[in-house]
Amino acid sequence: MVTTLKNSGDQAEFPTRTEGPFFEEEKEGYKGYVEWEKYPEKKKLGAEVLSRYKFPGPPEFQLEPLPKTNPVLEGVRWKQYHYAMGGTLKDIPDISWKYVQKEKSEDMIHVLQFPYNGEPPRRRLVETEITPNKDHFVRNHGGVPEIDEDSFELELDGLVNKPMTIKMSDLKNEKIFPRQSTTVTIQCSGTRRIEQIDMYPGDGDELINAPWGEGAIGTARWTGVSLRSVIEHCGGLKTSDGTSEGDIHLEFYGADTYFKKGKVMNYVVSAPWRKVKYDEVLLAWEMNGEPLPRIHGFPLRTVVFGYIGARSCKWLYRIKAIKGPSQAPVQKKEYLYYNQQIGKQNVKYSNGFSIQDMPVSSAIMTPLDKEVVVHDGKITLTGWAYSGGGRWPERVEVSADGGSVWYEVPWQRLSKKYFFGWRVWSMEIPVEYEGWLEFCCRTWDNALNTQPTFVRSAWNWDLHVTSSCHRIKVYSVNRSRSETAERLQVIEQNGLSLFPLTQPLEMDLESDEHYDAEMEARGGRDPTE
Amino acid sequence: MVTTLKNSGDQAEFPTRTEGPFFEEEKEGYKGYVEWEKYPEKKKLGAEVLSRYKFPGPPEFQLEPLPKTNPVLEGVRWKQYHYAMGGTLKDIPDISWKYVQKEKSEDMIHVLQFPYNGEPPRRRLVETEITPNKDHFVRNHGGVPEIDEDSFELELDGLVNKPMTIKMSDLKNEKIFPRQSTTVTIQCSGTRRIEQIDMYPGDGDELINAPWGEGAIGTARWTGVSLRSVIEHCGGLKTSDGTSEGDIHLEFYGADTYFKKGKVMNYVVSAPWRKVKYDEVLLAWEMNGEPLPRIHGFPLRTVVFGYIGARSCKWLYRIKAIKGPSQAPVQKKEYLYYNQQIGKQNVKYSNGFSIQDMPVSSAIMTPLDKEVVVHDGKITLTGWAYSGGGRWPERVEVSADGGSVWYEVPWQRLSKKYFFGWRVWSMEIPVEYEGWLEFCCRTWDNALNTQPTFVRSAWNWDLHVTSSCHRIKVYSVNRSRSETAERLQVIEQNGLSLFPLTQPLEMDLESDEHYDAEMEARGGRDPTE
Repeated sequence: MVTTLKNSGDQAEFPTRTEGPFFEEEKEGYKGYVEWEKYPEKKKLGAEVLSRYKFPGPPEFQLEPLPKTNPVLEGVRWKQYHYAMGGTLKDIPDISWKYVQKEKSEDMIHVLQFPYNGEPPRRRLVETEITPNKDHFVRNHGGVPEIDEDSFELELDGLVNKPMTIKMSDLKNEKIFPRQSTTVTIQCSGTRRIEQIDMYPGDGDELINAPWGEGAIGTARWTGVSLRSVIEHCGGLKTSDGTSEGDIHLEFYGADTYFKKGKVMNYVVSAPWRKVKYDEVLLAWEMNGEPLPRIHGFPLRTVVFGYIGARSCKWLYRIKAIKGPSQAPVQKKEYLYYNQQIGKQNVKYSNGFSIQDMPVSSAIMTPLDKEVVVHDGKITLTGWAYSGGGRWPERVEVSADGGSVWYEVPWQRLSKKYFFGWRVWSMEIPVEYEGWLEFCCRTWDNALNTQPTFVRSAWNWDLHVTSSCHRIKVYSVNRSRSETAERLQVIEQNGLSLFPLTQPLEMDLESDEHYDAEMEARGGRDPTE
Repeated sequence: MVTTLKNSGDQAEFPTRTEGPFFEEEKEGYKGYVEWEKYPEKKKLGAEVLSRYKFPGPPEFQLEPLPKTNPVLEGVRWKQYHYAMGGTLKDIPDISWKYVQKEKSEDMIHVLQFPYNGEPPRRRLVETEITPNKDHFVRNHGGVPEIDEDSFELELDGLVNKPMTIKMSDLKNEKIFPRQSTTVTIQCSGTRRIEQIDMYPGDGDELINAPWGEGAIGTARWTGVSLRSVIEHCGGLKTSDGTSEGDIHLEFYGADTYFKKGKVMNYVVSAPWRKVKYDEVLLAWEMNGEPLPRIHGFPLRTVVFGYIGARSCKWLYRIKAIKGPSQAPVQKKEYLYYNQQIGKQNVKYSNGFSIQDMPVSSAIMTPLDKEVVVHDGKITLTGWAYSGGGRWPERVEVSADGGSVWYEVPWQRLSKKYFFGWRVWSMEIPVEYEGWLEFCCRTWDNALNTQPTFVRSAWNWDLHVTSSCHRIKVYSVNRSRSETAERLQVIEQNGLSLFPLTQPLEMDLESDEHYDAEMEARGGRDPTE
């Protein structure tokens, strides 16, 4: 008997289940953490419970306009998946939303309510080089577990010489582990996805393909220990079976529960040893000098420098050294980059390559797209610029003519260089033209890579990594032109407004006398012979 | 008294000088090596000798078509600089050309005779993943010194704890230094420069801005020792004065003599320790299992993985650990990347950023630009794809319509992946259209960087790093169209030819009977009412 569910994320509307199994927490002090990976039988039971329901499909948000609500999308199915599990997971959607309200700014754009995906308002994001914790974007794949730091233990196993568990107090003990603080930008591969959607829709699963704007990126100073030190503490990598260090990847297990095509699991991803050994993977418990917020992975998360955010696993409880990349679905079946001719008709996992290192990218954050700017011949643009993999933005350029001629943002107007951080920038550029203009920006990193020219250049089925030149439309009203200045004055004298641009001007555009004089001067509308 | 020189590279035409100084070799067994860097007084004397002449300027090869000769450019001034020095350098232009003839393929395209700059014919370069030594491009900045391996000593000094000199026999002694072999692509930042020149000329110095095609790139298996091991052998970096390891660069000294704006010097460049410490800088004496050819730096050179070729210093005789990048002119004043609005009117060294890591790039090597291809609906393309800095080409795409729709080159048609090597590729693509088509290719590396769309996107004053999508024009004659097949047959029956395309066809294009019938069927040329 399959129960068809209403399209409602309200727990009260979810049919009460009296029959087991109900999935309780794995450990005391770990509310909301169910261990799936160690218990294949439990995974089967989880899948069996899911199969008792017909869940509503994902909402259409590409062939139709996005809802004007905030949260934009609700995540009904994912709430229901959690309700269906019963036990410790059924309250997780509510608990998670509580942490959004407690830990994030009030005016966040809630792209998806559950699992929580949110970005800050455009204008504020680039006001500071370091993103305040409450404004840092969040892209969660599951609910927020509540883990007591005192109960917490990190497990290390797989291809290490001395598998062990380590308490938080030991991780924080500088006599055992040297502490590392690094300024790192984390970026979701969905950043700027809305540009791809607006042009050509793709895979419509709101969980992996939420309609992000330009704010799914943020920069913090992260503090913790280098995973390299922790592996050394475990006696180093185990290569006695002939496995080469170069083939080893570190698999990260998150305490959140993830769902994929009728299966249930923990959030599991990996990063290669060649990254870990250079101190580019941090186990972090501090974000900008404060304890990690719950919603950002308290008490411990990975921060994988220069990679896609998805590898920076939150609520980390286990690290397993394995041969090759993780075979878990998030690593193997998601965050793949397809070519332009791959879609629903032919897509396979092996056809995409795995998004790890992030490419060079940038965005104009002000003016906003479709803004009307009244100015005196100059307009100020602000934005961010970033490149992954240890490369840094060397040059940011902006154009007021759709990319024919570019201005370089003066170095004085770019924030400091970091190997793994973005740069925020601003520049006042001359704008003589009036009417709708296309402003765009692009960045060159130190490896001389720059952004492809058009959104179409980088369109892909899963709508990942919108790295093309960022383009916005701005309606330019240039008050330094005398006719425009006069018109603005007349509009004001008449108590009228230029705004909204699309509403008709309730006054005549010129007097009949003026029109007649003009026509006579121009020789009339028609030829005379 | 300044002597004005004729525009001739012939040594016999150079005025004989009876007055000193004459610059002899520094050491026995080092023909053609003058040490300048250790002797400021000698540098002054060298500059003084140069000031006695008025040398001809560089040839115009941008506002006028390139000469059809091979060598394309001669390098008259640079030959004369060497003649002027007298002593060991005056024979170097002749000796160097002798090594071109001995060590390189007969059909090389000699972009510049002296200092030798040459690339192999397009078609052959991508037939093998490893470039044969005789086909590997050469971009020399000076003449070829003849150094005896037995006399050779490598000097190490600057910020190392134990400065020393090391004989080649010790460098090759595996009991002292572990040997390293790595497949590495070296690319000149001038590769594909001709595309920038064709569109908009830039700085016209043929020495730094030679008119390269797509062949200034090659791949070899290099063998030698990691510079890291050598530095460790010298007791490691000296940081006792408070210099941080992260600030240290390794300066490489080449035995060739270089000239710049009236000054004379050795070829000196640098790479940062952060690159050296990861075993990404090799001191190499073997190229594809053979001793280094003289023209490629015998007996010892650096190979800096993933960087611009200019850092892979040939005829290496000294390495100095210094704070910050080298202040020598090649590092500080050349290989800079400017923005589109910088040129002769405003260019300064500090306005450009230093080209180190190379970006993602690729090229179509066959068909050739402007080739007429007669086919049956499918055309095979071949080419190369590369990305620097340890990133590898993940995807190569080709387009037959100027880049509107792209085909992915199947993975089976790409050569093996290397962290520091290119991939050669081939693909047969459907081509239905006839007439002039624009074929293009682009590559995505594992960091999801791809090439900018147009040459204009990356134009810069020094014409470096033409990394935009490579575009060629191909005239398509599709024999699978019946009218075309018939026409080709008639041409053949008439003993005529489609080639050259631009020569008129000496036969009537249709019979008068056929024309009349066709016109009647179409209702005539003009409307009837």
